Amino acid sequence: MTETYTLRDVSIGIDATGTRQETDSMGTIDVPANHYWGAQTQRSLVHFSIGRDRMPIELCRAYGIVKKAAAQVNLADNRLPNWKAAAIIQAADEVSSGLLDAEFPLFVWQTGSGTQTNMNVNEVIANRAIQLLGGQVGSKTPVHPNDDVNMGQSSNDSFPTVMHVVTLLEIENTLVPQVEALIASIRAKADMWNAVVKMGRTHLQDAVPLTVGQEWSGWAQQLETTLSTLRAARADLTELAAGGTAVGTGLNAPKGFGKAIAEHIAVLTDKPFVTAPNKFSALGGLDAMVRASAGLRGLAVALMKIANDMRWLGSGPRCGLAELNLPENEPGSSIMPGKVNPTQCEALIMIATQVLGNDATVAFAGAQGNFELNVMRPVIAANVLHAIRILADGCKNFRVFSVEGTTLNERNIKHYVEVSVMLVTALSPVIGYDKASAIAHRAMARNETLKEAALASGVSETVFDQTVDPSKMVGNGLAGA
Amino acid sequence: MTETYTLRDVSIGIDATGTRQETDSMGTIDVPANHYWGAQTQRSLVHFSIGRDRMPIELCRAYGIVKKAAAQVNLADNRLPNWKAAAIIQAADEVSSGLLDAEFPLFVWQTGSGTQTNMNVNEVIANRAIQLLGGQVGSKTPVHPNDDVNMGQSSNDSFPTVMHVVTLLEIENTLVPQVEALIASIRAKADMWNAVVKMGRTHLQDAVPLTVGQEWSGWAQQLETTLSTLRAARADLTELAAGGTAVGTGLNAPKGFGKAIAEHIAVLTDKPFVTAPNKFSALGGLDAMVRASAGLRGLAVALMKIANDMRWLGSGPRCGLAELNLPENEPGSSIMPGKVNPTQCEALIMIATQVLGNDATVAFAGAQGNFELNVMRPVIAANVLHAIRILADGCKNFRVFSVEGTTLNERNIKHYVEVSVMLVTALSPVIGYDKASAIAHRAMARNETLKEAALASGVSETVFDQTVDPSKMVGNGLAGA
Amino acid sequence: MTETYTLRDVSIGIDATGTRQETDSMGTIDVPANHYWGAQTQRSLVHFSIGRDRMPIELCRAYGIVKKAAAQVNLADNRLPNWKAAAIIQAADEVSSGLLDAEFPLFVWQTGSGTQTNMNVNEVIANRAIQLLGGQVGSKTPVHPNDDVNMGQSSNDSFPTVMHVVTLLEIENTLVPQVEALIASIRAKADMWNAVVKMGRTHLQDAVPLTVGQEWSGWAQQLETTLSTLRAARADLTELAAGGTAVGTGLNAPKGFGKAIAEHIAVLTDKPFVTAPNKFSALGGLDAMVRASAGLRGLAVALMKIANDMRWLGSGPRCGLAELNLPENEPGSSIMPGKVNPTQCEALIMIATQVLGNDATVAFAGAQGNFELNVMRPVIAANVLHAIRILADGCKNFRVFSVEGTTLNERNIKHYVEVSVMLVTALSPVIGYDKASAIAHRAMARNETLKEAALASGVSETVFDQTVDPSKMVGNGLAGA
Amino acid sequence: MTETYTLRDVSIGIDATGTRQETDSMGTIDVPANHYWGAQTQRSLVHFSIGRDRMPIELCRAYGIVKKAAAQVNLADNRLPNWKAAAIIQAADEVSSGLLDAEFPLFVWQTGSGTQTNMNVNEVIANRAIQLLGGQVGSKTPVHPNDDVNMGQSSNDSFPTVMHVVTLLEIENTLVPQVEALIASIRAKADMWNAVVKMGRTHLQDAVPLTVGQEWSGWAQQLETTLSTLRAARADLTELAAGGTAVGTGLNAPKGFGKAIAEHIAVLTDKPFVTAPNKFSALGGLDAMVRASAGLRGLAVALMKIANDMRWLGSGPRCGLAELNLPENEPGSSIMPGKVNPTQCEALIMIATQVLGNDATVAFAGAQGNFELNVMRPVIAANVLHAIRILADGCKNFRVFSVEGTTLNERNIKHYVEVSVMLVTALSPVIGYDKASAIAHRAMARNETLKEAALASGVSETVFDQTVDPSKMVGNGLAGA
Repeated sequence: MTETYTLRDVSIGIDATGTRQETDSMGTIDVPANHYWGAQTQRSLVHFSIGRDRMPIELCRAYGIVKKAAAQVNLADNRLPNWKAAAIIQAADEVSSGLLDAEFPLFVWQTGSGTQTNMNVNEVIANRAIQLLGGQVGSKTPVHPNDDVNMGQSSNDSFPTVMHVVTLLEIENTLVPQVEALIASIRAKADMWNAVVKMGRTHLQDAVPLTVGQEWSGWAQQLETTLSTLRAARADLTELAAGGTAVGTGLNAPKGFGKAIAEHIAVLTDKPFVTAPNKFSALGGLDAMVRASAGLRGLAVALMKIANDMRWLGSGPRCGLAELNLPENEPGSSIMPGKVNPTQCEALIMIATQVLGNDATVAFAGAQGNFELNVMRPVIAANVLHAIRILADGCKNFRVFSVEGTTLNERNIKHYVEVSVMLVTALSPVIGYDKASAIAHRAMARNETLKEAALASGVSETVFDQTVDPSKMVGNGLAGA
Repeated sequence: MTETYTLRDVSIGIDATGTRQETDSMGTIDVPANHYWGAQTQRSLVHFSIGRDRMPIELCRAYGIVKKAAAQVNLADNRLPNWKAAAIIQAADEVSSGLLDAEFPLFVWQTGSGTQTNMNVNEVIANRAIQLLGGQVGSKTPVHPNDDVNMGQSSNDSFPTVMHVVTLLEIENTLVPQVEALIASIRAKADMWNAVVKMGRTHLQDAVPLTVGQEWSGWAQQLETTLSTLRAARADLTELAAGGTAVGTGLNAPKGFGKAIAEHIAVLTDKPFVTAPNKFSALGGLDAMVRASAGLRGLAVALMKIANDMRWLGSGPRCGLAELNLPENEPGSSIMPGKVNPTQCEALIMIATQVLGNDATVAFAGAQGNFELNVMRPVIAANVLHAIRILADGCKNFRVFSVEGTTLNERNIKHYVEVSVMLVTALSPVIGYDKASAIAHRAMARNETLKEAALASGVSETVFDQTVDPSKMVGNGLAGA
Repeated sequence: MTETYTLRDVSIGIDATGTRQETDSMGTIDVPANHYWGAQTQRSLVHFSIGRDRMPIELCRAYGIVKKAAAQVNLADNRLPNWKAAAIIQAADEVSSGLLDAEFPLFVWQTGSGTQTNMNVNEVIANRAIQLLGGQVGSKTPVHPNDDVNMGQSSNDSFPTVMHVVTLLEIENTLVPQVEALIASIRAKADMWNAVVKMGRTHLQDAVPLTVGQEWSGWAQQLETTLSTLRAARADLTELAAGGTAVGTGLNAPKGFGKAIAEHIAVLTDKPFVTAPNKFSALGGLDAMVRASAGLRGLAVALMKIANDMRWLGSGPRCGLAELNLPENEPGSSIMPGKVNPTQCEALIMIATQVLGNDATVAFAGAQGNFELNVMRPVIAANVLHAIRILADGCKNFRVFSVEGTTLNERNIKHYVEVSVMLVTALSPVIGYDKASAIAHRAMARNETLKEAALASGVSETVFDQTVDPSKMVGNGLAGA
Repeated sequence: MTETYTLRDVSIGIDATGTRQETDSMGTIDVPANHYWGAQTQRSLVHFSIGRDRMPIELCRAYGIVKKAAAQVNLADNRLPNWKAAAIIQAADEVSSGLLDAEFPLFVWQTGSGTQTNMNVNEVIANRAIQLLGGQVGSKTPVHPNDDVNMGQSSNDSFPTVMHVVTLLEIENTLVPQVEALIASIRAKADMWNAVVKMGRTHLQDAVPLTVGQEWSGWAQQLETTLSTLRAARADLTELAAGGTAVGTGLNAPKGFGKAIAEHIAVLTDKPFVTAPNKFSALGGLDAMVRASAGLRGLAVALMKIANDMRWLGSGPRCGLAELNLPENEPGSSIMPGKVNPTQCEALIMIATQVLGNDATVAFAGAQGNFELNVMRPVIAANVLHAIRILADGCKNFRVFSVEGTTLNERNIKHYVEVSVMLVTALSPVIGYDKASAIAHRAMARNETLKEAALASGVSETVFDQTVDPSKMVGNGLAGA
């Protein structure tokens, strides 16, 4: 092949109308003339127009990284000439930067290997590269979607590779920062309200006191724990299937391809990707994705608890617990004037229920592999990426529009401490559990304050005042005992 | 109010740029000048830009039906003047016909009551009606989103009403016809292949014969059963919450409103909608939706079994079971020439795993109601409608692109019958279970045919040929015993 | 065969120690001499000692009904002599009455067809019948587990038959009565408290009033709805696979066997069992079980809402909502004297979460059938029967130990009505939504009563008192609008 | 208190009949005289006789460790005298060693905090200690269940402590060894069959070759990955709530109690337990349990894939894939002589579906915490421990009764390699994808071998034989590319 092609400065876009013919091994097919995709993409559009669930655009963009890395390896090994690699790399960069988003129309519901999306990416990059090199779009010359863009790859190893890449990037670059910001926001409140004593509740029933800060510190800690789970999923996700080609043996790929492409992807993403230690499990299983999904599920579980606590503590204003004032962002009712609702909490709780469902799908699909391939890839990728996205956005909105603007109703908080009978617990070591219990029952039965009941039961006022001091009952520090 | 307004012929669209100010009880807010939505929609867009999940457009369209019915009731009761009702009804018709789809930008992740989508609909209908009457868009005059479009309604009863309406419509008008078409397609194959004897498989292991038609009839029957489940969910879905307003008591709605609006909705949709017998459970629970979701889940379970059977029977071409030839729709591999994969089956199986996850979300969310309201409505509506959509499209594509084009590999089917040892079962009543078992083991151990082993074990050829006749072992008819 | 055997009066029990040898087609094996089970049961115990989950005893008992019915059919058709049928029938009656419960030691985790439990039943009935006829236990003479007890049956059709029988019996005889009793108990409270006005809560926030009776009527209605779902599952469960034998064709069973055995089972159980219209789907799918499980799940969803509402309304005693007084059944805390917790609610909620998990297993397993058999039967049967059992017991204990003893805290209920600001809603039609909203905001901001704020805002006391009357805001009747 | 008590040598057991009276703060109650449990246990039996699910005995035993550690701390701090601590410690040892298993009759469905099981343990240890010290059982003298055995503890911190302890012990001591043994068994087969070339299958369709050893190595690797997930859950589980008492503040526990008891538990179990860094999240959340459950779920997902692969590869004997011969452990059918089924695979697959359901329950319940307590503890503990148990036993039986006895059907394996058309992939780089594709299609259409079709299409025999050599197509080593 004589190197006669030069990379030109051609802006994105095909100035054509109607259709052009593209070909694959099934024959020719008409594709829209103003799009870069080719025959296999078009065939998929015909056969799989199901619902409205497109392959997540983040995955398509991340494919640009994988294809660029492949071209870099093939260039370094002299399997691609400079000019061709350069065109592929530029087109791949345009894919990963989002400039070609409109070229990825395929649905989640397609071949279970993700082959059609891999070919969609190959076709778009090939045609864009052809355009950049002055060739005729659709001609497969001088850049071929299979022979050049897909060189050394099979969908079978390429698609799980991009699944790992995009999932790790989305978790670490999109989700974790939002969780960390939410933690910081909650911790700031915990610090601010560290000295405010409130009544604790167990079984929803009055218990012994703690501080508002301590309660909030527990929420922050729950989120910290989920972060560590997400981080633990990283190790598996960094292992890439690339190099295994069709069944894991690496047939038709040069030796060392897997290791090399992982190194390039690591550099391009600044994440510690490596080649998977066993290519058969990397193709036949999707265990790292199942594990990542479990991490997201764990976050949803914690968020649900936190959002529930906040909306209950904000319930009222007159007939609820009313310890917190949540921000008023919008009218709550078209029929009840002045009503304000904990809508950010509700949205987050709905997101949590969604993530649990997504995770159920992922686990189920993850168990359905057969032999050398698990063909549930698109549904797993879509559910994991969807969960990441709504969790990230949900954390952000919850923080900005609810947590940050929340204030205390100190009057109510103080009132509960004053009227609670459960402060009797502090008397228990002094007067015994049985007598303490009798005092508590008397107070409830006669609608007395604890002090009234205690004094009437023979406890001296001095003892009572020294013992039943809520501020002494909350231990030391935000973290508790 | 003097009736001075006339309905004009104004085509859809607001010829304006930039923003205009709209107001609600929280104050004023800028909205895009070329859209019909108002303040509360805009506020929701600000506070709930979470993910990419928009409120299903089918639900927004169905809201047009509900709002039209409300206007009809209010007109009949003289609570709305003719000209105002007419404008609202025209705008509502435009909503339900899809002409105003672009006006419903809200996300699933919003207030759990669906209030924001109800207000979105109210605002769009009000502004469009204002436009039709020559008023100024955004002025709330002469048509007010709350006072007029929402008259007699609260989001609390209106949103579950539209959930039932759209779910029933989508199941019966979109999904059921596709399931019925799939059943018909499978039954046609069953009839066609009624006389083709094949080996049955239990535990994946060779069993006794049946006909291809019988196997296919079992698939059709499974689908029939799921249809009956979907139909059973109808009774609950036909019961509408409308009339209960804020908490179920019907405060601020006229007596009889619930019954009347249900009758109008029944006429408009040609479905037997009635007012719910108890409004408190209709607002506080979403049991009919949970039940409908279970029906969809049952369909997914059956489809998964069928699609799995078909792809396994189509496995090969040389190293699998290879009893069925599935249509070749697209190249299967970028690296393996000539490979064809059961991609329609895979898509359907992925859809089934998705529906099971959606259903998990629905059940979880359905259990999370509190007091007079379940605030998991948008997530439940979205998951149920999503499941309906992908099931309907999945059934259609599976039928058109896989079932209808499937043919038999009669050579292989016949071969399995010939070589199988399990036909020995027919000998069991004649020579006894123990001797039959010994023959089977001998045939396997010595790699003999069943006949060879039987004759060598003392069975006469006459007895063998009369007894071991696969065509006599398949009973009578497609439905089996 | 000469009829020389007579049925004797031998009490249950084998007076022997050590082991005896039993045989099957794999050879001989030692079984405990004091048990009735035989070789295949023993083999299963060796190979499947997994966990502690025994096949539900209700299923084993119901197998007694199925085996009796089979013997009745075989007797009527002269395939079994009188004396042999009589012995089998007596043994089968002993199985179904629970007298032989100790003879069913097998685990859920066994062959997926349930064959080992079918053989367990066959072996126990055969040996007991042999004993009754004066034969030698373990000799298979004069009653053979396969040839006689299993006559006309395969595990493949017999096990799904007993699954349907036991599930329908357990739902209708065990579960439904408990749900009905719970509904009655809730309805009695609703009637008792029909006139007690309380504040409604939506989004956990104060809303407009309803009566306590109305709130309770909503709970009762939710349960009624789930009952109708359970009843709808009946139709599918009544269809029995028996007669299909190994793959659905009925090989080696006489014509008409399926219809006849279903009729006998119907008589024995007083339930409308019929033979399944298609035997291939009856063996290859377990759709009726999946559907029944969905019905149980629906009940769990409703119970969770109800139990949650009750424990929240009972929260306190001083720092919660405290509208309900739940019974005090046991000390709530080892450290907090006098603490009482809503433990019955908690148990029921845990049961609900369990049932949702069971149902997830059932749906997943139901989707895993292949060809002529779904081999997930034991896990499906175990999860469905477990759910029925804990739901039934849970409903009973919840009713007896919580619902029936619940009383009202009328002081608190009245207080909330008095202080609530949301009664302003009634003013809205009189003074307009905007002015009403301003009054509500003023009351909250200045900590005024609604009346104070209204009067200060220019509403006359006469108008206020006539309009803001909670007892007029609750509509008519328990069922709401 | 004068130290007058001496520890005696009294064997376990109470020689009494009928009932004795025990008391708690609710009054007196009759308990069985021959049991050690007391009033609160008995009360729970009365109010919570639900189903047949007992609190897992492993948890009750592990409680012996926690109570011993508490006594050690209290002894070291001089809060318990030597003789009393010694008696408690001996009784606690008897609990942890299983000698008192019959004393823990409570059900899973009880108070959501686990208080009743905590009190069950306290009562049993107290009464046994009283017996050892010569006191009167039931007298609470000289050892009191609350004051002495529960000293420094609340159920609220004690129950999650024992949940972590037992879960970690069961995972590491019971489950992980079985998974490791299974991995070793699979790896041994992989090594043994490293050189046996077979056809790979992707999408269930014929793909390119790999070795049997490579296929098995992928299964082993999948299990390795799940092990690493289980190990990652360890970090969270080692953090213990003890010391937080009722709400996390440590009220009524001495300072440093949490740190000290964790150290003692670490010594007693030889596991690195530490005190939790935040006690509020340790009581209010159960995130570590949710995460552990996800680890178990991940194992189930991998096992399901492996067991499915094995049973499919063992399908046949004449009408399936028949590459593997699975061991014949028992007769497979009562109606089909000589039938053998992959029952161990089926049991393991059912176990996997069960674990996914258990995990759904755990995640759901984990999200249902409120304020200072999650009251879903018993259901979470029961489901996690159940999953561990059946996974461990399932792995063991699967290994012993299936994997270890599996052999190859080398004749079939070789045959598939010979007849497959997909070896054409190796020709692709030599003659081009298009021509290779045409050869493949020709071979299928004319029912030719690949070689026949290739030669007829102009490929020279030399080129064919050199290129299409399956043994050269499998790459290097067990791990693949």
